[in-house]
Amino acid sequence: MRLDISYDGTDFYGWAVQKDLRTVQGEVTRILSLLTQSSVDLFSAGRTDAGVHARGQVVHCDLTPQQVDLLRGAERINRALPEDIRIRAVSIAPEGFDARFSALWRRYTYRICDDSTLMNPLLRRQLLWHPHKLNLDAMNEAAQGLLGLHDFSAFCKSREFGSNIRALERLDWHREDLFCVMTIQAEAFCHSMVRSIVGSMIPVGDGRKPTSWPSEILSAGERNVGLTVQPAYALTLEEVGYPADDQLADRQQITKARRSLGDECD
Amino acid sequence: MRLDISYDGTDFYGWAVQKDLRTVQGEVTRILSLLTQSSVDLFSAGRTDAGVHARGQVVHCDLTPQQVDLLRGAERINRALPEDIRIRAVSIAPEGFDARFSALWRRYTYRICDDSTLMNPLLRRQLLWHPHKLNLDAMNEAAQGLLGLHDFSAFCKSREFGSNIRALERLDWHREDLFCVMTIQAEAFCHSMVRSIVGSMIPVGDGRKPTSWPSEILSAGERNVGLTVQPAYALTLEEVGYPADDQLADRQQITKARRSLGDECD
Repeated sequence: MRLDISYDGTDFYGWAVQKDLRTVQGEVTRILSLLTQSSVDLFSAGRTDAGVHARGQVVHCDLTPQQVDLLRGAERINRALPEDIRIRAVSIAPEGFDARFSALWRRYTYRICDDSTLMNPLLRRQLLWHPHKLNLDAMNEAAQGLLGLHDFSAFCKSREFGSNIRALERLDWHREDLFCVMTIQAEAFCHSMVRSIVGSMIPVGDGRKPTSWPSEILSAGERNVGLTVQPAYALTLEEVGYPADDQLADRQQITKARRSLGDECD
Repeated sequence: MRLDISYDGTDFYGWAVQKDLRTVQGEVTRILSLLTQSSVDLFSAGRTDAGVHARGQVVHCDLTPQQVDLLRGAERINRALPEDIRIRAVSIAPEGFDARFSALWRRYTYRICDDSTLMNPLLRRQLLWHPHKLNLDAMNEAAQGLLGLHDFSAFCKSREFGSNIRALERLDWHREDLFCVMTIQAEAFCHSMVRSIVGSMIPVGDGRKPTSWPSEILSAGERNVGLTVQPAYALTLEEVGYPADDQLADRQQITKARRSLGDECD
């Protein structure tokens, strides 16, 4: 079964279950187990960090036909869930579907308000406040240097296993509803990669660093002391892309083989 | 001086100062007094109830030129304010301007989500969740019966002094971003009037009451036991309208004379 989920990450310690902490996976697992009167295991496309929101998280779980019958209807599950999580859709997943390993790409947005008079207080839990006007043209120029296949170790929390090589498919900034919105898309991201990339671009937008700064950090290959990982609450997992149904199983095998030691986060 | 203010009403006991409670007026007064090192009195266009939000609240205060100098720049005031209040603009008010008594009209919106799969968890603090699809055509038909000049006592908390006669200039529903939005505009509103009107229209949208029900309540002239005042957190003060500068003083006199015993709330 496939579930499409949105959540307000404010009051969660991220997606993944952690002992004695409130997590999205923990809450959804608890409710699905309650409704099916059995143990349910969830697998998600993106293990979002504490505070990160989702509009398009995708999850699957393996169920018996009896369990599936008990979970029909997103409305029914939503009535049982806490109101900071909503099921957008429930469907029988096609053969070969794996929320995590069948995914082709993940798309995130990061939102910044750079004018205090335009700041909407009702959006402050998903919008970073920045005290200087940002030059999005400079930031978009800087973004060019990060696109494509690179070792993103300089933007990732180090790990003992796995590679930090990722293909960045999209990275751009635009103004929407008077706020600055960064859209970033890749097959997968390393831990804290998106928020570190934002941290490399804000000084460019401020004029404190040249547009070449993010790609210089990338080339250096190790974490830069001047680089600040930006807060999680302005980050949202927007959408996860999957191939056509007849390619889901192949895609799953390819991903598993390629990432036998790797991992996607954020 | 005129201030245009937006706020997230969630954590406030409404606009008006109350002893030992956190209110918007209390917070803004505290910060302006701190910045000017003197006592400042604020007068607002709408004394919003606990939980009600504002995008376009208008406030004035009478200041000396020295105090005005200390308050120049919305950015400066915003740096000192808590982040659930933002000053959108600061300006020297024209001669004769009174935020409350010069106002021609107040416009509010009320937001309802009637499909749990479309509910955005990040907007739940400003959006009422309703478990059945609403028929906005029926609600718009019902709205016709409330437009114009009426005694709205049936929709207001009773009062010993003052009249509940109000001219309703606009009342309509539309879908926006997949949510139902009611727009309501009048010269002024009585206490709880907007939320009671919403309460009279939801049963119409559900098909439980005929489209004539709101106007039947209005004609009855007293509170209907079947009428539920809807929650404050889905209500937002959007905008306050004023006449041209040369009519501000006249308008103020007219309003004061007409409402010598009345009062506007919500």
